[in-house]
Amino acid sequence: MSLELEQQSLQEQFEAIIRTEDKLQIREFLDDQNISDVAALVDELPDYESSIIANMSVHRAASVFKILDHSVQRRIIKTLPPNTTASLLNDLPADDRTDFLEELPSNVVRELIKLLDPEERRITLSLLGYPENSIGRLMTPDYVYVYPHNTIEEVFATIRKYGKDSETINVIYVINDKGELLDDIRIRDFILNPPDKKVSELMDERVITLHAYDDQETASEVFKMNNRVALPVVSNSNKLLGIVTVDDILWVASEEFSEDMQKMGGTAALNEPYLEIPIMKLFKKRVVWLVVLFLGELLTATAMAYFEDEIKRAVVLALFVPLIISSGGNSGSQASTLIIQAMAVGEITLKDWWRVMRREIISGLLLGTVLGLIGFFRIFAWHSFAPELYGQHWMAIGVTVGVTLLGVVLWGTLSGSMLPMILKRLGADPAVSSAPFVATLVDVTGLIIYFSVAYMLLSGSLL
Amino acid sequence: MSLELEQQSLQEQFEAIIRTEDKLQIREFLDDQNISDVAALVDELPDYESSIIANMSVHRAASVFKILDHSVQRRIIKTLPPNTTASLLNDLPADDRTDFLEELPSNVVRELIKLLDPEERRITLSLLGYPENSIGRLMTPDYVYVYPHNTIEEVFATIRKYGKDSETINVIYVINDKGELLDDIRIRDFILNPPDKKVSELMDERVITLHAYDDQETASEVFKMNNRVALPVVSNSNKLLGIVTVDDILWVASEEFSEDMQKMGGTAALNEPYLEIPIMKLFKKRVVWLVVLFLGELLTATAMAYFEDEIKRAVVLALFVPLIISSGGNSGSQASTLIIQAMAVGEITLKDWWRVMRREIISGLLLGTVLGLIGFFRIFAWHSFAPELYGQHWMAIGVTVGVTLLGVVLWGTLSGSMLPMILKRLGADPAVSSAPFVATLVDVTGLIIYFSVAYMLLSGSLL
Repeated sequence: MSLELEQQSLQEQFEAIIRTEDKLQIREFLDDQNISDVAALVDELPDYESSIIANMSVHRAASVFKILDHSVQRRIIKTLPPNTTASLLNDLPADDRTDFLEELPSNVVRELIKLLDPEERRITLSLLGYPENSIGRLMTPDYVYVYPHNTIEEVFATIRKYGKDSETINVIYVINDKGELLDDIRIRDFILNPPDKKVSELMDERVITLHAYDDQETASEVFKMNNRVALPVVSNSNKLLGIVTVDDILWVASEEFSEDMQKMGGTAALNEPYLEIPIMKLFKKRVVWLVVLFLGELLTATAMAYFEDEIKRAVVLALFVPLIISSGGNSGSQASTLIIQAMAVGEITLKDWWRVMRREIISGLLLGTVLGLIGFFRIFAWHSFAPELYGQHWMAIGVTVGVTLLGVVLWGTLSGSMLPMILKRLGADPAVSSAPFVATLVDVTGLIIYFSVAYMLLSGSLL
Repeated sequence: MSLELEQQSLQEQFEAIIRTEDKLQIREFLDDQNISDVAALVDELPDYESSIIANMSVHRAASVFKILDHSVQRRIIKTLPPNTTASLLNDLPADDRTDFLEELPSNVVRELIKLLDPEERRITLSLLGYPENSIGRLMTPDYVYVYPHNTIEEVFATIRKYGKDSETINVIYVINDKGELLDDIRIRDFILNPPDKKVSELMDERVITLHAYDDQETASEVFKMNNRVALPVVSNSNKLLGIVTVDDILWVASEEFSEDMQKMGGTAALNEPYLEIPIMKLFKKRVVWLVVLFLGELLTATAMAYFEDEIKRAVVLALFVPLIISSGGNSGSQASTLIIQAMAVGEITLKDWWRVMRREIISGLLLGTVLGLIGFFRIFAWHSFAPELYGQHWMAIGVTVGVTLLGVVLWGTLSGSMLPMILKRLGADPAVSSAPFVATLVDVTGLIIYFSVAYMLLSGSLL
């Protein structure tokens, strides 16, 4: 709360200052605030977003720029004069620059890369050479390295010389003459030991590395398990290529989260803030999935047509169709969510399929029994209350609905849990077997279960 | 891949060593591995989990223990001898110990707290005094603080004296005599400056703080925006209480993610790994939500009974019921997922409700038109192919289904997007207005839309 109040007054202060058009005062004001507060100002005052960035010292401007949304970054770059753009891009840490560039159309990227210094250009091009969502795209070449024969005093001299440009000096990397990574040593170990000690005496050769071609999700897991602020990235031959810092990983985790959520809800990942994505783009992202689901659901009309004679003879059967298909759908989406989520955090692997299936059979039977009993008693209760509604066959109808519910919930639970595992086995993303897809599958099969049970239990009486 | 291979061979190595029953060799082997590899061993070899922890040096055992799942931690504590438990708990960082204790029944907590040293007991009890999911529970009192009048040389002396016990020395905190927080200074700034400089000369008084009673989600956002490895936690009077490190935040983020996902899929949060939660507990967590949804869906049977006469006169109408209600449900869950997710990452606030509603009306009209047209052409196509199916009124039926789809999709989109915002406005968690709840709401109202449209368009002909 208090944070919000401060920001509001900050916004008011800034609006008062910008009206003076006194460039020096604007710059002083902006350079005096926290980076995150300036970023909040940019978000709140879209009219001034470019002038805020243009009126800061370039290093601070880069720090603000890198935490803005990609869509805002794009708008700002479009309006800044080329020389400001050039100094901004050159000052951006390599990993954040790559992250920004990879969201742009390739012709724009080519133009922007021309603005970079030769050295920065080389680094950016090499980072862009790694596949999207690979660790290579996240890493920065700005780190401090030392050799085993260095003394701690020499290490501090190296840090004083190169530490200013490096993303983190919390961890220092030890390499050999071939550039191979030997160890990583935390700065605290250098501080806590006498200056004449050698680096080799501090080495424990326990180093956890990431591989440049691995997926970014791997990095997120490794950071979680190892309590580090930075991890080294190596090539296949163990050459040190760069480092990844934990703050970039927080962003990866939240992006993954958004994408998984969106897939689970039956839409393609937006990749842009909801309120900023053009409405036709939003429509396109959504319509594809809805049409695919709709084409699946059209099969329900086919299935229903197949049972049209039964419905004509016993219209009462039609009354429970929505109840039955939605119960199957709900139990299916519940099961699929649980399994997708457990696979995402690594609690379940494909090897566990039989344990999962056993658990889901038991769960499905229990859940189906509960819903089946409620369904039966609902019919019993309404029959007691209004006997003309279901007529003399109320008991047979009740049993049909109850048994169907048991079968549909069991089937929904089973398919909901197995579909994500089958997709994963086939190399597809389990999150696309989201709730709506499982529901569609179970809708069609649920109708078949319903009318088959009805046929068995009611032929001779109602049918 | 290579990581998995290494772990497998590690497991084999360990199994060979444990069979020797040579305690010294076992301990040497375990102390030689990465913490995360030992944790993986514990996960893979549940039979040995307690002996692995018992056979490590206590500091390393604590590091492994704190990254294990709560259920594994509980099993290990149950089987360890009390004096091993005592030294393990005493060595655990205060925040991880609190995190572990808060998952246990209160009588067990009381027993365990008795095992702690007086100082550790005091710290733990004070941390447990903060509300669950508050930042207070995450913080650790192990940090290094200095005063503005200290020189950098004195700072390094302080670090050498107290740095060993502290969670991080990447950031050092500057306080005054009253214990109020003045600034945080990164260790790099001390290293990059001459030793006789004073702390006050390095201070910029730009410090970002967390409040002990704030929600942990806030901390996650603040870390993302500020690129820090640790943040100070202060009381209302700006007294420094402790620090929160970014590795704890990675865990918070992934726990939140799991809980949100599970709620979105229509189940209570499990809070335990899927394969380890007892099956009756799994059932209980799931059945509540399914029963609530089922009770909602029972209204569909009521609605259908209300239209029983219409269905008797035109059974063909029943054929499209599943198609129509599921289209409404799918568009509704898509919209609610988009909005819940955008609110979770802060892209949308309640103030934006009108902008959201405008966007969703346009999206709903577009999406509804597409599905309506497909529905109409499906009926047209099947009529051309098998004219007896829908008879002479096929056109009227097609228009009814098409118009209904437009209405139902528009309604689904609108309610799916507005429901999370209304819940948030009422102070409830928007994630509970998950896909299944929106689908249930739209199922019932979708039937009413369908039969009302049918009544208007078909009375006089089919009805």
